[in-house]
Amino acid sequence: MTSRTDARFEDLLALAHDLADRSRAVILPYFRKRLEVADKGGARGFDPVTKADQAAERAIARLIRERAPDHGVVGEEFGAERRDAAYQWVIDPIDGTRSFITGIPMWGTLIGLLHQGEPVLGVMDQPFTGERFWSSKRGAHLQVPGARARRIRTRACPRVKDAVLMTTSPDLLGEGVETEAFLRVKKEARMTRFGGDCYAYCMLAAGFVDVVIEAGLKSYDIAALIPIVERAGGRVTTWDGRPGAEGGRIVAVGDPALHEKVLKLLNR
Amino acid sequence: MTSRTDARFEDLLALAHDLADRSRAVILPYFRKRLEVADKGGARGFDPVTKADQAAERAIARLIRERAPDHGVVGEEFGAERRDAAYQWVIDPIDGTRSFITGIPMWGTLIGLLHQGEPVLGVMDQPFTGERFWSSKRGAHLQVPGARARRIRTRACPRVKDAVLMTTSPDLLGEGVETEAFLRVKKEARMTRFGGDCYAYCMLAAGFVDVVIEAGLKSYDIAALIPIVERAGGRVTTWDGRPGAEGGRIVAVGDPALHEKVLKLLNR
Repeated sequence: MTSRTDARFEDLLALAHDLADRSRAVILPYFRKRLEVADKGGARGFDPVTKADQAAERAIARLIRERAPDHGVVGEEFGAERRDAAYQWVIDPIDGTRSFITGIPMWGTLIGLLHQGEPVLGVMDQPFTGERFWSSKRGAHLQVPGARARRIRTRACPRVKDAVLMTTSPDLLGEGVETEAFLRVKKEARMTRFGGDCYAYCMLAAGFVDVVIEAGLKSYDIAALIPIVERAGGRVTTWDGRPGAEGGRIVAVGDPALHEKVLKLLNR
Repeated sequence: MTSRTDARFEDLLALAHDLADRSRAVILPYFRKRLEVADKGGARGFDPVTKADQAAERAIARLIRERAPDHGVVGEEFGAERRDAAYQWVIDPIDGTRSFITGIPMWGTLIGLLHQGEPVLGVMDQPFTGERFWSSKRGAHLQVPGARARRIRTRACPRVKDAVLMTTSPDLLGEGVETEAFLRVKKEARMTRFGGDCYAYCMLAAGFVDVVIEAGLKSYDIAALIPIVERAGGRVTTWDGRPGAEGGRIVAVGDPALHEKVLKLLNR
């Protein structure tokens, strides 16, 4: 017998999947079309925004207003709605805009739900490959086209020297202290791969990557990914070990035994 | 009426597609499986080789021996066969082993054909997404699942300051002169994205990327990609402007008007 809380959770998860479906349908026609790319500029330089991003965020926000009118929505394009609500949807229709505009299917749609500031569920959808990663109460899951959904789990990797490390781009780490901290981990790790955005965290959840290190993240870049990584067996925190849902400098590990070791290297 | 040469070309292209089909069937079951990864080591450090790579190379070489016994084969794993043949197949079943072992579908199977040392056709196949890029006599083409094959073309981008630049990893450029040359282009370009391997050249051919710069390539990393880029309207050479089929330091541009400008920056 499922409890009322479980039933409530299943409804929220069903809504999250519906939001991802809606967003996918809106975004996919724009992928690999020649777009006008606006330059939002700012301290980190080129930050492309696409029409697809904006159209999908509007579609997601509209469906939340219909189905959960008392929930808040936090997104990149339109700021926040109902910031005092207990439930807050934290969304980024195109995480990985550089991948998107270069035609590379390594971006994803992030849909996260916070309750009183705590991440309770997350979905990462890749419209072009048809892959979807999500968290349930009992675990993390991956569905690929033509196959049944399966549980995903992080892999054991207690030593930094055996770890596969990912970060989106060396350029997204600030000059100086952030880059130096990252390079200390990179130097110890077995292998580093650049590029990835949300995809890197999902590959960590699926047991192919051991550490993801990034900086300058917004809440909507990470909130949806935390429950996926954690239900798969990993940990996500800031570089100083605090909860990661608000973004900033983020470290994710697949094997919790790596967490303290990586934090030590980052903060030496 | 097709000429005899055209008919011969169509047979060779059909064989190339069959080789890609065969390779795809061999590799796909290994993707996102936990693999034993051998470390070939060497001067550039960690260079993973998978069982999938070896099994696919054997399957490809076997089919070439059956269907074109007088053709040579050059691959990463087993060296070269019949090096004096006029036609040489230059193959790399998994270009982008770092992507492969991190679960990321940005690797590809490269199948190129040289005639008297000149690239005459190329196929890049991505087994997981089901995408295939190839060159014909009349152009470059992309097939994605569920859609008809379509012509792809590079885009106009005559100025470096408007260009989107890709390279696989800053780590694959040698210390010193290669990195400095790359950074001169990066500084002028509109945007840089890391990660990509063969995928970067295909996105250039499809008009989403303007410049790809790499170093330390082998013939099998680039030979298949040259006809795809060139039939799409772009150019591929070494950094000093010589033909690129033997690898080394490679630059690809989508708009031929960019070629001289990028070479100037690389060789300043």
